[in-house]
Amino acid sequence: MNNHTLNLEEIVENIQPPDQKIMKQAREHTSRLAIPPRALGMLHEMGERLCGITRSLNPVMDAKAVVVMAGDHGIVEEGVSAFPQEVTGEMVKNFLAGGAGINCLCRHVGARVIVVDMGMKADPQSLGLLTNDTFYAHKIAPGTANFAKGPAMNREQAKDAILYGFERASALFQEGVCLLGTGDMGIGNTTPSAAIGVVITNASVDEMTGRGTGVNDAGLQRKKTAIQKGIDINQPDPCDGLDILSKVGGFEIGGIVGCILAAAFHKKPVVIDGFISTAGALIAHALCPAASQYLFAGHCSEEPGHKTMLKYLGLEPILNLGLRLGEGTGGALAMNIIDASAKVFREILTFDQAGVSGKAS
Amino acid sequence: MNNHTLNLEEIVENIQPPDQKIMKQAREHTSRLAIPPRALGMLHEMGERLCGITRSLNPVMDAKAVVVMAGDHGIVEEGVSAFPQEVTGEMVKNFLAGGAGINCLCRHVGARVIVVDMGMKADPQSLGLLTNDTFYAHKIAPGTANFAKGPAMNREQAKDAILYGFERASALFQEGVCLLGTGDMGIGNTTPSAAIGVVITNASVDEMTGRGTGVNDAGLQRKKTAIQKGIDINQPDPCDGLDILSKVGGFEIGGIVGCILAAAFHKKPVVIDGFISTAGALIAHALCPAASQYLFAGHCSEEPGHKTMLKYLGLEPILNLGLRLGEGTGGALAMNIIDASAKVFREILTFDQAGVSGKAS
Repeated sequence: MNNHTLNLEEIVENIQPPDQKIMKQAREHTSRLAIPPRALGMLHEMGERLCGITRSLNPVMDAKAVVVMAGDHGIVEEGVSAFPQEVTGEMVKNFLAGGAGINCLCRHVGARVIVVDMGMKADPQSLGLLTNDTFYAHKIAPGTANFAKGPAMNREQAKDAILYGFERASALFQEGVCLLGTGDMGIGNTTPSAAIGVVITNASVDEMTGRGTGVNDAGLQRKKTAIQKGIDINQPDPCDGLDILSKVGGFEIGGIVGCILAAAFHKKPVVIDGFISTAGALIAHALCPAASQYLFAGHCSEEPGHKTMLKYLGLEPILNLGLRLGEGTGGALAMNIIDASAKVFREILTFDQAGVSGKAS
Repeated sequence: MNNHTLNLEEIVENIQPPDQKIMKQAREHTSRLAIPPRALGMLHEMGERLCGITRSLNPVMDAKAVVVMAGDHGIVEEGVSAFPQEVTGEMVKNFLAGGAGINCLCRHVGARVIVVDMGMKADPQSLGLLTNDTFYAHKIAPGTANFAKGPAMNREQAKDAILYGFERASALFQEGVCLLGTGDMGIGNTTPSAAIGVVITNASVDEMTGRGTGVNDAGLQRKKTAIQKGIDINQPDPCDGLDILSKVGGFEIGGIVGCILAAAFHKKPVVIDGFISTAGALIAHALCPAASQYLFAGHCSEEPGHKTMLKYLGLEPILNLGLRLGEGTGGALAMNIIDASAKVFREILTFDQAGVSGKAS
């Protein structure tokens, strides 16, 4: 299972921050465009960051892909979710049939959808699903253990999840993908995500825990209790990303961590979706702070702790449309804006090129 | 000049609000999608409104166009703009050469750009510009009069501007355009827009007036003084849209009013851009309150009064990216999200279709 080409230390050692010199050149170019100074606001910052990330003054964001990592969670025993656990497999089947939100929005932005079974309970074969270049199986276990009673997984499994995510995303970059999105499917997975958020950002369980797919008041209380219990029993070390992932995380969250590290390693931008992807980003940041400079926050989720997570990472969300679906949907939709920011940088003429008079004073 | 097929009264009489019965059916459809209840937030509201607007449960937003209305302003005599007046014509030339922000973003979202000379100072021929199916000339006058000294135009000119905008947009809808955006070009035009905002929303001149393309402190003070003077001298009637447009408006703003009325008349959605387009929307609302139910607010501009305008119209901006360019750019970028909302409505499978289990309780 652990036959990976690079180990985690080698990956982290080879990640450098975006190139500041190129970003400075990019800002100089923006200042010459035939528009009032920086009149396209955040689009300029995004385009310039794409230059720094890709080490190029000609950022192109045409080939896009979203990797949806799927996994199940032992913590659902505690009654933390509004939906039954079999929905994880059923939704994976829906993703592969093209009928879900992520399929719709990826078609819209021109992105491939890749689905990975990182550890769902269902057997893909019994769902009639065959692995191919859209669906990969790397089932670490059929769901994590209930982290309210002990670690969700062991340290080797956590490492395996990250390294597999790294390899899956690396393969996409090698095939020419220039903008990657992360997505998730896993009934119950706002619970480990909130636990990760609490441990890393030091916010309270109350602040970090929301209703996920829509638990009622009693379910919300059970969810908060389970998270507190999991943290008390497991005592994850806030400085050790691998420790946090193994004790209160999930297999799909590990896969997302790997995707983010791969983007930073290959000097490509990666757009995270909502609460679960951002929990993955928190782990990636704990393992390698420079990696978070390759991140774009697709949107701000309705899940109340998401803002706190984004603030911790210093990320400004691109969209704010009240989404709370997951699957990668908010990130997918934001890919379109990221792509636009690259075009704004490349295509708008300068005052000189356009023959337009500059500012009067 | 006033040889228009319909008069303003006939247009307004024939505008009905979106169909509430179809919107109710649309909400019922959304409730059956294989996602947690309304998990795609504002995308659902947008998609359902598209159903009500188009009287269809199959909203398609593929054919898009942005009309950029250009005009000059006598009020620039008062020293209210950071850029010289010749930039209006130079930028129109840039639009027709494809090198501006609006061209870049319209290519990105797959929208046509149509430019109309509603009353710019420059002679298009002397700029080497020929009218064709991308560039139309309907020069009411070479710029408005200085409204700090008297009305910007007469009532007949205001009506003419609206009716020409109506006809231009109507022609696009008849050619199959299903989503229209409004844009503007006119050095100085945040000044009449702020004046319109003050008269209609009853906000203070201080609250409504910003730096536009970037005037300095002295320019900002001159701008506020000019707006107050214009309102004091002309005494526009807050209940009479035509009176406001003629006394403190602009020819391109009148054209935008006409585009909005055309969308409502033809039962099509229209996305407004920033401060100037929204000033047009305020006039359209004053003339025909039901018309504003056909509006989508593309984004929230950095111009401080824009929020107050949007609130008055009851509109939630789709994007919030710190844009302040105008030209129609924010609306163009938001077209992509509006299109996505239609696809979310049409393409996501229901629980039954996807074979996914519903909520546990």
